[in-house]
Amino acid sequence: MNINILSLFPEIIDTYFASSIMAKAVKRQIFSYNAINIRDFACDKHKTCDDAPYGGGAGMLLLPGPLSRALEAAGARKKIALSGTSELADQKNFSGGEAEYYQTQCPEDLSLQADEKCVRPDGEGRGRIDECGLLGEAARQSENRSPQKKARVIYLSPSGRFFDQALARELSQEDELILICGRYEGIDQRIIDLYVDDEISVGDYVLSSGEVAALVVIDAVYRLVGEVIKADSLSEESFTGGLLEYPQWTRPEIFDMLKVPDVLLSGHHEYIRRWRLQKRIEKTLRVRPDLIKKGVDMGVFDEETLVLIRGMDNAAKE
Amino acid sequence: MNINILSLFPEIIDTYFASSIMAKAVKRQIFSYNAINIRDFACDKHKTCDDAPYGGGAGMLLLPGPLSRALEAAGARKKIALSGTSELADQKNFSGGEAEYYQTQCPEDLSLQADEKCVRPDGEGRGRIDECGLLGEAARQSENRSPQKKARVIYLSPSGRFFDQALARELSQEDELILICGRYEGIDQRIIDLYVDDEISVGDYVLSSGEVAALVVIDAVYRLVGEVIKADSLSEESFTGGLLEYPQWTRPEIFDMLKVPDVLLSGHHEYIRRWRLQKRIEKTLRVRPDLIKKGVDMGVFDEETLVLIRGMDNAAKE
Repeated sequence: MNINILSLFPEIIDTYFASSIMAKAVKRQIFSYNAINIRDFACDKHKTCDDAPYGGGAGMLLLPGPLSRALEAAGARKKIALSGTSELADQKNFSGGEAEYYQTQCPEDLSLQADEKCVRPDGEGRGRIDECGLLGEAARQSENRSPQKKARVIYLSPSGRFFDQALARELSQEDELILICGRYEGIDQRIIDLYVDDEISVGDYVLSSGEVAALVVIDAVYRLVGEVIKADSLSEESFTGGLLEYPQWTRPEIFDMLKVPDVLLSGHHEYIRRWRLQKRIEKTLRVRPDLIKKGVDMGVFDEETLVLIRGMDNAAKE
Repeated sequence: MNINILSLFPEIIDTYFASSIMAKAVKRQIFSYNAINIRDFACDKHKTCDDAPYGGGAGMLLLPGPLSRALEAAGARKKIALSGTSELADQKNFSGGEAEYYQTQCPEDLSLQADEKCVRPDGEGRGRIDECGLLGEAARQSENRSPQKKARVIYLSPSGRFFDQALARELSQEDELILICGRYEGIDQRIIDLYVDDEISVGDYVLSSGEVAALVVIDAVYRLVGEVIKADSLSEESFTGGLLEYPQWTRPEIFDMLKVPDVLLSGHHEYIRRWRLQKRIEKTLRVRPDLIKKGVDMGVFDEETLVLIRGMDNAAKE
């Protein structure tokens, strides 16, 4: 798997990948990554990447121009069917040629395909299309990319669908991911309508940096790719089986007057297994009763678990 | 606010704080942070911080010794009442003195209070309490800390209660936070029972690094402290009012054949406000109907919003 991360602060991504577990996974070629600085695709001398929203409102949005060029450089391709809220501009706004949908906006964009025409707006000032000069090194890197391979484009946004372990598993099957990290108030809707396959939220809270949300997705996904984490370790973890984890203890046996529960020292595997199952159910009932309800509804629990759940649930009610 | 982050990979935290927005907030003294390497509090020559769980199972746990010393150095104090799953050891296991609960385990620990006694286990091998030598620089730093101030201790874990915007707001009122980043399979339960005030999960997915979860909490919390983000920007964002955000556009007016919706160019504030409200409801109904249900149940919507919700909901059903 190759993960491309489009960001205004790629150094946050780079250090994360430099940490030992990630560095090991990259070295073992389980996956590769590419932190792309959106600012490298800004064309003016100030390297502008944001502007105020139309219609007013607080904050700034990421401009569609630099972001779309960064996306194309990362191997993103426009969706065939337009989705979302944006509307097609009237043909009368253009004088430069046929107003075909599937086109790129800038002749200097080195990722242009041979059969794509560049359409210019009229010279009236209104309806001006984003322009850029030479993109330099950043865009030239895109020549090495295969335009045939369709990368899955993800925009991290609090307005997206919920990220969960099932979606992490789904994403871990992809060959190529592109993650867009928002900053400020968000990104231009046309980028979402043109390029984005999934708008994903990592939780019901507002982050100021999309980089942190991207790290969540990467951290959850990479470990499911190949054999980064051993299978037996994965299978015992939270959410497998719809229950939270059991409590755990390590050395020493007594720490600060507190001892490891005797059952864990007994060596009796069946006792230990059952005790841990009970603890998982107890904790899930207390902290996340929604998971128990969901698990029961979806039929993920075996008979032993169901009997224990009913027993504890009744005990709590008495 | 001061945020202490206990981690085996503090460099991930450091770079995040070096990024521009965070660096600005730290410089303006809105908050400070302290990335503490748990490994600095390991006492053996290999700087061991993890070991296998009692009772078997995959993976390794963080040892309670180094972690508790790191916590004390960060200003954490043990809870008065023991909570959770751990049990008190029998008095017969000890020969060094009264088996009082509120004690620290190591005479060389520089954060020891004068009235605390150090209790040693008997010499039988079993029931051995964690020992350490001199802690050096890392522990000496703790002398500068006020032991009176009770920091709120948070352990990032998929088994915790859900982190959301309300909890972010609650945490933003604290003077001192300590975040424990787990790695491997988790931490020793006694640390949770002795020190942890909140076990928090950032979402229903498994992360391999608690650092990423800690960044989520920090990124959501810091912006609510002081005036990092302007108030009018905050108030328009997702989850305020129980709805997702409206779509937004910035320059140019036409980008890649797609135009900014006419209403946003109209200059008519009331039309824009109403159109945006409609778009928020449309999107929330489509992507996160659970938020609409929750908002209706909790009575957070005003009459205009409720009328629009009912209208769109009925239209969808027809």
